[in-house]
Amino acid sequence: MITETNQACDLVIFGTKGDLARRKLLPALYKLEKSQKIHPDTRIIGAGRADWNTEDYIKVVKKAIKNFLNEKVDQNIWKKLSARLNFFNIDVFKDLYFLELKKILNAKKNIFIYYCAVPPNTFNAIFKGLGKVNLNSLPSRIIIEKPLGVSLETSKKINKQISKYFLESQIFRIDHYLGKESILNLLALRFSNSFFFHSWNNKIIDHIQITVSEEVGIENRWNYFDQMGQTRDMVQNHLLQILTIVSMDQPKNITPEDIRQEKLKILRSLKKIDLNEINVKTARGQYTSGIINGKTVPAYTEENGANKDSKTETFISIRVDIDNDRWFGVPFYLRTGKRLASKYSEIVIVFKKMSKNLFQKFNENLSPNKLIIRLEPNEGIKIEFLNKVPGLNKEYELKSDKMECKYPNNTKNFVDAYERLLFESMRGIQSLFVCRDEVEEAWKWIDPIINAWKKTTTSTVQLYKSGTWGPKNSDSLIMRDGRFWETFN
Amino acid sequence: MITETNQACDLVIFGTKGDLARRKLLPALYKLEKSQKIHPDTRIIGAGRADWNTEDYIKVVKKAIKNFLNEKVDQNIWKKLSARLNFFNIDVFKDLYFLELKKILNAKKNIFIYYCAVPPNTFNAIFKGLGKVNLNSLPSRIIIEKPLGVSLETSKKINKQISKYFLESQIFRIDHYLGKESILNLLALRFSNSFFFHSWNNKIIDHIQITVSEEVGIENRWNYFDQMGQTRDMVQNHLLQILTIVSMDQPKNITPEDIRQEKLKILRSLKKIDLNEINVKTARGQYTSGIINGKTVPAYTEENGANKDSKTETFISIRVDIDNDRWFGVPFYLRTGKRLASKYSEIVIVFKKMSKNLFQKFNENLSPNKLIIRLEPNEGIKIEFLNKVPGLNKEYELKSDKMECKYPNNTKNFVDAYERLLFESMRGIQSLFVCRDEVEEAWKWIDPIINAWKKTTTSTVQLYKSGTWGPKNSDSLIMRDGRFWETFN
Repeated sequence: MITETNQACDLVIFGTKGDLARRKLLPALYKLEKSQKIHPDTRIIGAGRADWNTEDYIKVVKKAIKNFLNEKVDQNIWKKLSARLNFFNIDVFKDLYFLELKKILNAKKNIFIYYCAVPPNTFNAIFKGLGKVNLNSLPSRIIIEKPLGVSLETSKKINKQISKYFLESQIFRIDHYLGKESILNLLALRFSNSFFFHSWNNKIIDHIQITVSEEVGIENRWNYFDQMGQTRDMVQNHLLQILTIVSMDQPKNITPEDIRQEKLKILRSLKKIDLNEINVKTARGQYTSGIINGKTVPAYTEENGANKDSKTETFISIRVDIDNDRWFGVPFYLRTGKRLASKYSEIVIVFKKMSKNLFQKFNENLSPNKLIIRLEPNEGIKIEFLNKVPGLNKEYELKSDKMECKYPNNTKNFVDAYERLLFESMRGIQSLFVCRDEVEEAWKWIDPIINAWKKTTTSTVQLYKSGTWGPKNSDSLIMRDGRFWETFN
Repeated sequence: MITETNQACDLVIFGTKGDLARRKLLPALYKLEKSQKIHPDTRIIGAGRADWNTEDYIKVVKKAIKNFLNEKVDQNIWKKLSARLNFFNIDVFKDLYFLELKKILNAKKNIFIYYCAVPPNTFNAIFKGLGKVNLNSLPSRIIIEKPLGVSLETSKKINKQISKYFLESQIFRIDHYLGKESILNLLALRFSNSFFFHSWNNKIIDHIQITVSEEVGIENRWNYFDQMGQTRDMVQNHLLQILTIVSMDQPKNITPEDIRQEKLKILRSLKKIDLNEINVKTARGQYTSGIINGKTVPAYTEENGANKDSKTETFISIRVDIDNDRWFGVPFYLRTGKRLASKYSEIVIVFKKMSKNLFQKFNENLSPNKLIIRLEPNEGIKIEFLNKVPGLNKEYELKSDKMECKYPNNTKNFVDAYERLLFESMRGIQSLFVCRDEVEEAWKWIDPIINAWKKTTTSTVQLYKSGTWGPKNSDSLIMRDGRFWETFN
C-alpha cells in the first residue's frame, strides 16, 4: 500500500556508522523533525556492525548532527528525534540478524523503509537477508544509491538482485540532484511559463551547458574512485539526470510514471559516441598539484594510497547530441571535475545570436542571450541580455545586462536534497527517484564511451593543475564548435 | 547639407518666453552644455515679443534654469551657456522683423535651426516670415511640436503650409516620448536579443497594454485642452508612437528612413474603429473632484476658466487591433488620463497562458508571464514569471516572482528627452522625429473615432473621481475581453 500521505514507518538505516548517514541522512532527519514532517509513531533504527546499545548510538548521532548540521541544534527538536532512535547491531551476511531485526520492527503500525547507506558490494546481502525473513513484502520500501553498477552489465546485475525481492514500486533509487529545489523548480519554470516554454527548442536555443564543478579531491575515497572515474561517478547519474530534466518534453501529467517516461525518451535519444568521434566529443583530465583557496593540494596520483600510474579521469567534458526534433543541432556540453577553481553547479541555456546585427555600426558582435540556472551555490535564475548604453555619446552601443531572481535558500523554507528525498520516500512518491530503465539506459550510453577510450590510443587523460578549470582539451572540445565555456561568476 | 556631426548653429527659439522654452528647452540646453555637446560657435537666439536686451534675457534664462533644472547650476557651465545667449524682439506677423533677424544670424559659419515653441496658430507666420527673407533655404532646419492639427484636415493644412518653405528633410517634428532612453532601448531590446525577438508575435503574446497616466489636471491650459481632449492631445501622438515602436517589424537598417517605413506600415494597419464598435472599443472619462497626494483637487468643470457643461474627455481607453500577420488576435489596450492615482508610463506585454496547466492540482490558475517596460518613473524592464514555492509543504504550489533590470536613470549618463532631441536636431538626424506621413496616418485613424463619438448618442463621457484609475467603463472595456488592467507598482 503506497499512499500520498506521510506515514508512520520504521526507517532502518543500514550503514548508519558511515559517511553518508552521518553527513547527510541524520542531519536531514533532524530537519524533517524540525519541520514536523515525521509521523509521531515513526522510529529510526540505525543498523551497523558495532557493540553499541541505543544510548551509545544516540551519542554518535548527536555528534554527527552537531558536526554536520548547518544550524544550531534545538534541544526540544533533538529530544523528539532522539526518542525515535534505536540501534541494531547487524552482520548483514548472517540471516540470523535479520530474524532479530524483524522482531523489533513494528509490523502492525509501521511501514518498513530500508536505507542502504552501505557500499554496493553489501547491497545483495541486505536484499537477501530481508527477503529470507519476509521483510521485503509490500508495503515495505528500499532506498539505494550510487554507484548502481560500473557498467550496463553490473548495473543489470544489481537490478536483477534487488528485483528478486522487491517490486519496482518498492525501490527508491536516490540521485540527490533530483531533490534540489532548483531542479524541482526547473519543471515549474519550463512547464508553467509560456515565455520559457515556447523558447525551449532548436529554433531559438544555440546550445546548452551543464557544469558540476567540485573543489574537493579524492582523498580517502581513492581506491573506490579509481575504479570509477569521474564519468561513471558523476556523468552517468547526476549530469545525465540534469540533462533529461532540461531537455525532456512536457509530461502528460506531473506523475512519477509520466515524468519517467519523458526522461526515458531523452535517454534513449542520446546519440551514441563511437570510436571515430571519441576525441572530438570527449575530453578527459586528471588533476596535478595546485593551489585551491590558498592551500597547496596534492596531485591525484599523490593522494593517500594512490597508484602513481593511474590514468583514471578526475575531469570530463562531453558533447552530447539528442537525436530528436526539438534538439536537432543543439549540442549539450557537459563538464564535471574535481579540484577545480570553484565549487558550483549550473545550467546555461545559450540562445542563438540574432541572424541580423542591426547595430553593426556600433557593435561588431552581439553577445547571445543566456538563461542561467544556478543549482549551487546561491540557487536562482538569471537572464543575460543586451541593453543600449544610456547617454548621448554611445548612440546604439549595447552592453550586456542581467535580470536575476535568487531563490530564498537562506530561509526556513529551504530544503536540503536528502531531507526532501527522505520525506518523499516516507510518503511513497517515486517522482524524484530514478527508475531501473533510466539507470540502464544511462549505462547503455556511457559504456560505448568507456569502451572507445579503451580501444583508442589517441585519446589520453590530460593533466590539469588543481585550482584551474580543467585540461586544455576541454576548451578545445567546445571551441572547435565556435563556442566557449561559460565562466563562473 | 545635413551631416551626422554636431555642427555650429544659430538656434532660434521662437516663443522663448513660454512654458515649453522655460521648463524644457533652456534646462536641456544647459545639460547639453554640461556634457559638452554644443559646438563652441553655436549661439542661442531667444526670439519673443518683449522690450528686452540680451542682459534682460540672460536674467530670465538664469531664473528658468534655476527653477526647472533638476540639479544645482554650475557657474562655469552657466558662464559658457550664457555667453551664447542673445535676445531678439520679434513680432512674427511683420516681415520686417525677419529681415532684422537675418542680419544678426551668422550665415557664413552657422546652420540655422528654428524651434517653434509657440502656439500652432503662430506657426504659419513664422514659416512665411522665414521664407520671405530666404532664411528657409538649406541647410536650415525647423522644429515644430504638437498640436500638429486637431484632425487630418487641419494637420494637412499645417503640413502644406510648412512644406511651402521647407523640405521634409528640414522638418523636425518632436514627439518627446521618442527621446526617452527607454523608448530608444526598446529598439535595442527587440532587435538585439533573440530571446525577446522570437517571442514578439501572436503565438506567444496574448495582449499588450500601454498606459500613460498623469496626476496633473488641466489648470491653466483649460481652453486649449477643452478643444483637444485627451485623445487628440495624447493618443494621436505619444501613445500611437509608443505603439508603433512596440509593434513594428524589424527595420532593414537602423536609419531614419527604414524606421519610419516600418512605423508607417503599422499606422496603416491599424484597424479602423467604426460606429458600431465605438462603445466596445473606447471608453471616455472626465475627472471630478477628488484627492491626489492628500490634497483636494477640483473637477475638470470647476477648473479656472472652465465651461461647466464641457463634455471633453480627460481620460481615454482604446482597444487597438493591428491588421497584420504578426499581431492578428493580439489587442493593444491604450489608456491615458489626467488626475489619475499615480503618474507613470508603462508598456506591459502579457504572454499567453500555458495551454495546459500541468500543476492544476496545486494551482487552479497559472498567472501569465509578463514583460513590463517602464518608461517613467524608474525606467527599466521586469519579467514576471512563476516559480515553485520552496519547501516541503507546498509540493508544486507556484508563485509569481520577478526579475528586474533598472536603467541607471540617476547617473550622469541619463539624458532627458528634450536634451536628446535638441542634440539630434543639431546633428541633423531625423530618426527620433516624426515624419509627415506618420502624423497624417495617425489622424486618419483618430478622426473616425472622434466622428463616431459625435454621431452616437450611446457613447458618453463618464465621470471619474480624481485620484482613481479612471471611469468604470474603462474596466468594462478590457474585462469584456476577459482581461484586466495591470496595476501600478
